[in-house]
Amino acid sequence: MSIGIDIGGTKLAAGVVDPAGRIVERVERLSPVESARDAEEAIVEVVEGLGSRHAVGAVGLGAAGWVDTDRTTIRFSPHLAWRDEPLALRLRERLPLPVSVDNDANAAAWAEYVYGAGRRSHVMVLIALGTGIGGALVIDGRVFRGAWGLAGEWGHATVVPQGRPCACGNRGCWEQYVSGDALVREAGRMIEIGEPKATALCRAAAAEGLSGPLVTRLASQGDRVSGGLIAEVGSWLGQGLANLAAGLDPDVFVIGGGVCEAGNLLLEPARTAFAANLTGRGFRPLAAIRRAELGNDAGIVGAADLARRLAAGA
Amino acid sequence: MSIGIDIGGTKLAAGVVDPAGRIVERVERLSPVESARDAEEAIVEVVEGLGSRHAVGAVGLGAAGWVDTDRTTIRFSPHLAWRDEPLALRLRERLPLPVSVDNDANAAAWAEYVYGAGRRSHVMVLIALGTGIGGALVIDGRVFRGAWGLAGEWGHATVVPQGRPCACGNRGCWEQYVSGDALVREAGRMIEIGEPKATALCRAAAAEGLSGPLVTRLASQGDRVSGGLIAEVGSWLGQGLANLAAGLDPDVFVIGGGVCEAGNLLLEPARTAFAANLTGRGFRPLAAIRRAELGNDAGIVGAADLARRLAAGA
Repeated sequence: MSIGIDIGGTKLAAGVVDPAGRIVERVERLSPVESARDAEEAIVEVVEGLGSRHAVGAVGLGAAGWVDTDRTTIRFSPHLAWRDEPLALRLRERLPLPVSVDNDANAAAWAEYVYGAGRRSHVMVLIALGTGIGGALVIDGRVFRGAWGLAGEWGHATVVPQGRPCACGNRGCWEQYVSGDALVREAGRMIEIGEPKATALCRAAAAEGLSGPLVTRLASQGDRVSGGLIAEVGSWLGQGLANLAAGLDPDVFVIGGGVCEAGNLLLEPARTAFAANLTGRGFRPLAAIRRAELGNDAGIVGAADLARRLAAGA
Repeated sequence: MSIGIDIGGTKLAAGVVDPAGRIVERVERLSPVESARDAEEAIVEVVEGLGSRHAVGAVGLGAAGWVDTDRTTIRFSPHLAWRDEPLALRLRERLPLPVSVDNDANAAAWAEYVYGAGRRSHVMVLIALGTGIGGALVIDGRVFRGAWGLAGEWGHATVVPQGRPCACGNRGCWEQYVSGDALVREAGRMIEIGEPKATALCRAAAAEGLSGPLVTRLASQGDRVSGGLIAEVGSWLGQGLANLAAGLDPDVFVIGGGVCEAGNLLLEPARTAFAANLTGRGFRPLAAIRRAELGNDAGIVGAADLARRLAAGA
């Protein structure tokens, strides 16, 4: 068995994962975002705790950020205090176990590829729709990391020249049209301009605060404005997937992250836009567009499994 | 040694290639575009001719079009009469040699990766700028073909929503902004609107016909309108490469095809636009953007080398 740790901006979730991909014990705590040293302490504590109760052979971390191809160093993490941090090397000094680090989207993609919606695919693209877009590519049983470990950032490919501004410094990035943040922002605009049909959305937002899950809930209850907002995100998703398919020709796209809770309200418009925009449509097979199956556990399961295989020399 | 055959819409070029990537004999003839049977005949004749003079162990074909991942069948070729043609299987019946087929951009990319501008790279993207855009990706010593053999068609990724119409049925495809055709079309518009500064371009076009090489020659002679047209193509090229780098994180881009004859008139604006548009710029290494080194021979050399390795079980 191995331990997988999913470190996000708000929480640290860890689990002991067996070789069938099941989590046999799970723990969660708030993320130690203040300093790299705090994060290291928290990880050591969690591993020692889980390790005292289970026979564990390796530890894998999945973190939002850029991780070197040798899977030891976090170059940059947007939410955490890591800058060129040799995290795996530091942890190996303190823990009697092989430790490796990976990008959180790579970990989630690996879990879906082995145990989830990407089973039996050859070329799988994961698109995780949360605050932004996380992305990862698995090719014939290997996570593709790029030359410097920075692959999969399709969220920052430009889809609209001079489009919506993005925190990355560019304009028109895909994630400004397809993400939880994009959904909430567009819903907020709809309320702001006083769109008469948005009354239900406006009232609910006033009562409990505007959020992606709120828009999703209203949409699933039949609110047309909310449904339209999700469909618009879905349409941008499908158009972007068609661009990815032109270059990568995957057989499966797996859509994960919080926004995929909208299910077919999101995925049907995505499939329609994908089929309408795919180059060579009619002369080629259509890639499947599937909802992720492992939910929030994907990061833990994938990080654990990647670490187990790395330690086994696979 | 092995034979590589590069079959385009206008000519068929073949060569006997030694294991160092050198062409020891080369032949050329007009492309047999009328029927699949004619093409098969032409290939058999060329191989029998070359095979009678050299000790040859395998035959590799590179063709514009979609080739199955098992490298036997051409699903669709835009310029030739092949539709779901099991070309390699037919040829194996008539030739006493292992025969395989590949996409022409894959063949060219492989040649550049092993013998040309992509030597010592890990993740190499080839962009071949001719009539349209051909693309290919080599990852750690393997050509990436996608799930169905259709990878590398970045020329048909949308870069401008509702942009210039493309023969593929979409609008705003990258190749409508970055290709020989795009260059000639924009030059034609410049002449058409009677841009006063375009007098030199207009006169030369009237004398010898408007073409990509003409615009390139005028640009290299200092004509500012022609130089501006090439720089604009270069700028769109660099922006697109930044999108590719977001997802693929290559260490080297190799730019081939006829348009790369413009050299730094094209590549310097591309490098500038790439550096200005790359997401995470300043926090990551910049991929090199290099001109292809093998010119028109890349298709022959790559097809031959891929066939030789496949026959050797590599």
